[in-house]
Amino acid sequence: MIKRIHHINFIVKDLDRALQAYQVLFGDPVDEPEMLPQRGVKLARFKIGETWLILVQPVGDDGIPAQYLKQHGEGFFLISCQVDDVRKAAGQVSNDGIHVLDPHPRQGLDDWQVMDLDADDLFGANFQLVECAG
Amino acid sequence: MIKRIHHINFIVKDLDRALQAYQVLFGDPVDEPEMLPQRGVKLARFKIGETWLILVQPVGDDGIPAQYLKQHGEGFFLISCQVDDVRKAAGQVSNDGIHVLDPHPRQGLDDWQVMDLDADDLFGANFQLVECAG
Repeated sequence: MIKRIHHINFIVKDLDRALQAYQVLFGDPVDEPEMLPQRGVKLARFKIGETWLILVQPVGDDGIPAQYLKQHGEGFFLISCQVDDVRKAAGQVSNDGIHVLDPHPRQGLDDWQVMDLDADDLFGANFQLVECAG
Repeated sequence: MIKRIHHINFIVKDLDRALQAYQVLFGDPVDEPEMLPQRGVKLARFKIGETWLILVQPVGDDGIPAQYLKQHGEGFFLISCQVDDVRKAAGQVSNDGIHVLDPHPRQGLDDWQVMDLDADDLFGANFQLVECAG
């Protein structure tokens, strides 16, 4: 069902400072920092093989990334797994006992349609399903 | 310098229980559960695209994975990035201000030669460099 690890998100407090360190490992980010207003974040991304690595900085107190930063501090946030059909995949995993948090896909970056899974059903790790062309 | 996200490790308390949930998403693991005595863990792995996803259960109180479980609970543990030459890559990142925790490569699974980076220099995320044939 899952084709690849599509992206991995990390929460940071200060995107510019984090970029300086991550560039040592991953070279230049793919683009200039971007905003994703519906999540209340500013972000920058690297492409490592077939996987996006994304640094995410909450820009206010609202939204799940800001809550995550408050509760857990900086570090790993979520892993997004690419599927062909996100609604169908969500239905399958839900039938098999993993709670899907989003009733409908929500819009991520680019054409990414994402649905989050309940970390309590996956032993503390935030996983997400994503459908996208690229 | 980094070719791909080679593997992602998750810490769990009970490998058998975690496997039941992870199999919903990722299908059957590649092999039967394995032991890695030098880390004090039992583990099982899935292959997702070009990346290994590994569930790691500490089997005692000793070792870094056991300490991590005590301090952080279950969930994401580390991301390992493949390089051609792990000693050379460690020297480069060290020169650029990211502390390398291991003075020499240590033996992971299979032919994996790994060196851990200091999460404090990477905003809370555990990264590792790995050199291997496959």
